[in-house]
Amino acid sequence: MSDNDPNDAAAAVDEARLWQRHEDMAQHGLTPRGGVNRQAFSEEDRAARRTMIAWAQALDCTLATDEIGNLYIRRAGRDKKAAPVVTGSHLDSQPTGGKYDGAYGVLAGMEALAAMRDAGIETKRPIEVVAWSNEEGSRFEPGGMGSAVFARDMRLADLLPARDPDGTALGDALARTLEATAEVPHRDSGFLIAAYVEAHIEQGPRLEAAGLPIGVVTGIQGQHNYEITVTGTEAHAGTTPQRDRRDALQSAVAIIAALGDLMHDETDTLRFTVGRMDVQPGSHNTVPGHVAFTIDLRHPDGAELDRRGDAIEGVCQAHVGPCDVVVHRLNAVAPTRFDPKVIETVQHWADALDFSNMLIASGAGHDAMFVAKLCPAGMIFVPCEKGISHNEAEAATPADLAAGARVLTACLVDLANRV
Amino acid sequence: MSDNDPNDAAAAVDEARLWQRHEDMAQHGLTPRGGVNRQAFSEEDRAARRTMIAWAQALDCTLATDEIGNLYIRRAGRDKKAAPVVTGSHLDSQPTGGKYDGAYGVLAGMEALAAMRDAGIETKRPIEVVAWSNEEGSRFEPGGMGSAVFARDMRLADLLPARDPDGTALGDALARTLEATAEVPHRDSGFLIAAYVEAHIEQGPRLEAAGLPIGVVTGIQGQHNYEITVTGTEAHAGTTPQRDRRDALQSAVAIIAALGDLMHDETDTLRFTVGRMDVQPGSHNTVPGHVAFTIDLRHPDGAELDRRGDAIEGVCQAHVGPCDVVVHRLNAVAPTRFDPKVIETVQHWADALDFSNMLIASGAGHDAMFVAKLCPAGMIFVPCEKGISHNEAEAATPADLAAGARVLTACLVDLANRV
Repeated sequence: MSDNDPNDAAAAVDEARLWQRHEDMAQHGLTPRGGVNRQAFSEEDRAARRTMIAWAQALDCTLATDEIGNLYIRRAGRDKKAAPVVTGSHLDSQPTGGKYDGAYGVLAGMEALAAMRDAGIETKRPIEVVAWSNEEGSRFEPGGMGSAVFARDMRLADLLPARDPDGTALGDALARTLEATAEVPHRDSGFLIAAYVEAHIEQGPRLEAAGLPIGVVTGIQGQHNYEITVTGTEAHAGTTPQRDRRDALQSAVAIIAALGDLMHDETDTLRFTVGRMDVQPGSHNTVPGHVAFTIDLRHPDGAELDRRGDAIEGVCQAHVGPCDVVVHRLNAVAPTRFDPKVIETVQHWADALDFSNMLIASGAGHDAMFVAKLCPAGMIFVPCEKGISHNEAEAATPADLAAGARVLTACLVDLANRV
Repeated sequence: MSDNDPNDAAAAVDEARLWQRHEDMAQHGLTPRGGVNRQAFSEEDRAARRTMIAWAQALDCTLATDEIGNLYIRRAGRDKKAAPVVTGSHLDSQPTGGKYDGAYGVLAGMEALAAMRDAGIETKRPIEVVAWSNEEGSRFEPGGMGSAVFARDMRLADLLPARDPDGTALGDALARTLEATAEVPHRDSGFLIAAYVEAHIEQGPRLEAAGLPIGVVTGIQGQHNYEITVTGTEAHAGTTPQRDRRDALQSAVAIIAALGDLMHDETDTLRFTVGRMDVQPGSHNTVPGHVAFTIDLRHPDGAELDRRGDAIEGVCQAHVGPCDVVVHRLNAVAPTRFDPKVIETVQHWADALDFSNMLIASGAGHDAMFVAKLCPAGMIFVPCEKGISHNEAEAATPADLAAGARVLTACLVDLANRV
């Protein structure tokens, strides 16, 4: 056993400390029902960043932030010029989200740094924890912005005009966020990364059903996001004959019903969701003149995903009736296959630390899918109760969170000394 | 010709004064596109009431307000104990409404009082102008509250807990409104009325198409309003299989599509509108757990209206799929047939004043439909451009507004001396 044995680092993971930090972090945006509302670049997000900075300073780590607000916490390695091994996830949440989605990956990374310090571990490469900005996209669309800008998959200049439902521009909210951490030095995004491992709750039911604490993630299904805008004419509900109406809501309903047929899948592999729908002017006795709704479409097979996605425009035009429809594809992310070396490393340490585990594909998108375009990448899943996520009832156990953090810690030490 | 000739009163109507008062009133809630947003019991509504009070005081009229905030402006008659002849309409508007819907009926009534004063007219019965509260129902449902409470068709206690989309209770907004006119004496609603005539823009295209300035209104179609609530389960859009979903939006879409079939009408007489739809939590990557939408249903035949309305619950239950649905009927107003004597009086004075006219049924609901349960009632329509209403583009001409006010003035003087 050397001074830098990953087993020693993993053993130093402190389950109680990790659990308490989830409780502490959840105070930023805690909801009355025990969930979290900490949307990107909000006051709650800024408070979460301040907490991260305090924790990083207590670990004698160095800090940096980039142009999209990604926050980096770096533990030095022996080779100061070597590219870092990176872990992390996101601190923003859904409007009715839970305490673990995203936050777990960041806090497990911080626990890994603390465990390495406690165990006196020194690595060849530096190790960095990153909190990627705006993964959820619930306030400013599209999601995955921080990691996508890092990976040059999105351009910052294209994103700045995006507005939240209250009309606030992303550029303004981002500027306020960067001002709130003005003492943190700037670093340009897109720097070289040696390897990336992200820990996350599964957000699905399979690990819990199998009774396993660790999922070794093989990849992420592809995802397209669309915004559909239907325009008709506002009119009086009592006097306007049906034949004279251009009712944007009725057209939207016809389109969504037809899209449901288009998206039918006997194998139940395709994921088709209309999550947001805005009806204007929203008066019970006025025919709606304007409807906007979103489509979230996912499939593990890229060709099948493209085939279904490409058919949306035609279905919209065919069923819009007397109204007008505009189909805007917000983003399209191909399926991700993680790096075999990283998958093997995660599986090795799960086995070595005696955590039963399974190979698993991710249904949800994660920052790792953008980072995987730049470097060898992988993910570690831990179970969440009943697979419930994007919900204030999201729950996980201290033991499972610690198990994932131990596997993560061992992987980081191993990768930072080996690759 | 006597001192109390209705012709003299009608001739004293001042087209320019009436037009200017529409412009003045529209300042309370004027929108950038030249429409009006003056919703019930809002700050803008309170400002409109203050303007009405000032105008009433300049005419030496007496004021009163009742428990639901209906505002009464009374010109004394010779017989102080006689029940008044009443005219009026409402000052509240749709969120993207126009300058004439409702306001015209109140301002034409005020112009009638001014014309009577200018012409030195004295009537046997008092004449009152009323501004009924919350006719539109766009902020607090259901609409027609002021006149319905007056007619004992709704109970105030049942309405007070209603909340606007921001969560403000009707009781609180009403209390603030009554405080803002605290100097106006209280009078209980439901007092005896001798006859009621309401002037209004047509809100439909028929008078304009026929080239006629006056519509003699024979009745109002019946109307039911419903709120439908669909409850499912919030879930992650990427990980939740379709078979495990309880997607409230997809269930709502299936219900609305099926209701469209139920409400099909070859004669295009039925009016079926889903005007408001709220989807929660409203994130593009979360399966919606809650959808609420409204139904506005109208037909001139009461039996047919009841038959269609009674079938809504069954269709909702049959198409809700894995979610739960609750159907709440907010109100049901049977078709109204106006009093033959009032219809004849309106037609007589339109002819006598040389305004070409036609008999016409109202597609829109009006306060007159509640008042008609209490006393002989009728309405006078004037054209609006292209029939457009509940829209900021709503328009009418000074000449048509004045024509309607002249017919109204003659009818009021005639009725106040005759009945």
